[in-house]
Amino acid sequence: MKAPANAGLFYANCSDMSLVIVGTVAFDAIETPFGKTDKIVGGAATFAGLAASYLCPDVKLISVIGEDFGQDNLDILTSKGIDVEGVEIIAGGKSFFWSGKYHNDMNSRDTLVTELNVLADFDPKVPESYQDCEYLMLGNLTPSVQLATLERLRNKPKLVVLDTMNFWMDVALDELKQVLKKVDVLSINDEEARQLSGEYSLVKAASTILTMGPKYLIIKKGEHGALLFGEGQVFSAPALPLADVFDPTGAGDSFAGGFIGYLSKLNSVSFEAMKSALIFASALASFCVEKFGTERLQQLTQADIAERLNEFVKLSKFEIGE
Amino acid sequence: MKAPANAGLFYANCSDMSLVIVGTVAFDAIETPFGKTDKIVGGAATFAGLAASYLCPDVKLISVIGEDFGQDNLDILTSKGIDVEGVEIIAGGKSFFWSGKYHNDMNSRDTLVTELNVLADFDPKVPESYQDCEYLMLGNLTPSVQLATLERLRNKPKLVVLDTMNFWMDVALDELKQVLKKVDVLSINDEEARQLSGEYSLVKAASTILTMGPKYLIIKKGEHGALLFGEGQVFSAPALPLADVFDPTGAGDSFAGGFIGYLSKLNSVSFEAMKSALIFASALASFCVEKFGTERLQQLTQADIAERLNEFVKLSKFEIGE
Repeated sequence: MKAPANAGLFYANCSDMSLVIVGTVAFDAIETPFGKTDKIVGGAATFAGLAASYLCPDVKLISVIGEDFGQDNLDILTSKGIDVEGVEIIAGGKSFFWSGKYHNDMNSRDTLVTELNVLADFDPKVPESYQDCEYLMLGNLTPSVQLATLERLRNKPKLVVLDTMNFWMDVALDELKQVLKKVDVLSINDEEARQLSGEYSLVKAASTILTMGPKYLIIKKGEHGALLFGEGQVFSAPALPLADVFDPTGAGDSFAGGFIGYLSKLNSVSFEAMKSALIFASALASFCVEKFGTERLQQLTQADIAERLNEFVKLSKFEIGE
Repeated sequence: MKAPANAGLFYANCSDMSLVIVGTVAFDAIETPFGKTDKIVGGAATFAGLAASYLCPDVKLISVIGEDFGQDNLDILTSKGIDVEGVEIIAGGKSFFWSGKYHNDMNSRDTLVTELNVLADFDPKVPESYQDCEYLMLGNLTPSVQLATLERLRNKPKLVVLDTMNFWMDVALDELKQVLKKVDVLSINDEEARQLSGEYSLVKAASTILTMGPKYLIIKKGEHGALLFGEGQVFSAPALPLADVFDPTGAGDSFAGGFIGYLSKLNSVSFEAMKSALIFASALASFCVEKFGTERLQQLTQADIAERLNEFVKLSKFEIGE
């Protein structure tokens, strides 16, 4: 276990469980009503890893990058204690690049550029030191790579969380359904839950999806919070009402990273633990959107996180007095 | 103070505050994907009054009906202990009638028929026995009638809650703004908050609307719950995830009635009390949509309400353990 520089408050009861995250480490170029960026560091595993690093001291990434990514960018991850042994660097290769433009309501976006580059032939490598991982996050990625990662672990982790999106439902539904059979928790948004289940009601959508493999389903609703279904129960996590969403890129990844990061810190997979994990997830996602790309997630302190969690408590606690 | 037949659990600490609700008492004909009704009892004051009657023992209505409404329909209200002295019956007149059809997603509807009838000349009467009311709900209605009711009370109530809708913003915005200056709490939905403020962000919309008169703003978000803004704070109440919404008619009115009913029962206008009131409001609204019209709100027991409140607690309570 490595103790990163930002270790603090949330390690008090920390267990020694390692968390492996597979996903993209990449470049993004983003345009929002607030401005635009050149190529900046992005990718699902980057956001998820950074978010998880504030909760769990032993985060390990599996990804692929090109030689263009550079050590300074990798250091964004390693400076948080994130293990990048599983991040393969392809000599002479170019990193995955995505460029998008958000509309004024920030709820929809156009993809301007998608250059798969080294991601096109991503063959995920699981270093020997990753083999004992207890928590696995299959970040948003082609389902066949998610499946390959899972199959290359000798022992099934204690908890496998899958994050995916509508794109994979459109182009790789059969493979996605294969992966679904092997995971414990699925994290998708409301429209994706409707698409995957064919049900409009989220309650009915959850019932259908929970027959597809996962024992738990998280439905992300953006500014409306998130729902957790499982064990015949349901939990509703609020979203923090924000005056401005600066850049939504990576919010879902940060959410998933915060979720599994908290569970691995606590080393618990109970429904009660998942409820708290959803609040940590929402808190990390709320930071992510405050600045472009990973900027805000790079700067957090444990005090920032504690204060934000307190805002969630004030936002949602009530008494039903008689 | 009259003790209605359904007095129970929630009267334990009950104060003697009376609640006056002005709004429509009317007939509706409703079509949803689950079926359609003939003329059934509806109206904003009917739904709000029924919802409030389970929490507050002294609910008084101000409205206008035609001779066609009938004693049996009035008894739906009086059987819950609701005072109808302020419900004027126009001899030979016909009651307000609205007919609507909900679309498959239940989030939008078409109005098929609107017959104002006796509502066209509604001149609200405040009986002498209503004059000491401490809590006033101005139910969804033309703003000039809301204003007249307020002006006919000799003393300003302890709390005035205004419920309105986009229709009045379209056709009577100036009058609505006049009323807004005189109320404590405004209850509208998210699209209406955006329309009234000209702001897309609900946080910014709330800031703008709180300069228009109300000290508190409730933003109803349907299946996504509700937000309460005021005193520089914000509270997020969840909605109960439902497999089926049978008929949404009256849900907003039941919500508002539950909100002010709880506050008048508790005789408190603190932000903390309003947080709890929002949960009661959400619980009453969740019953309303389970059957057509007022059917479910007529049948509730205190045990039903206690069980539903417990569902809200399970739905939203979490621990942030260290």
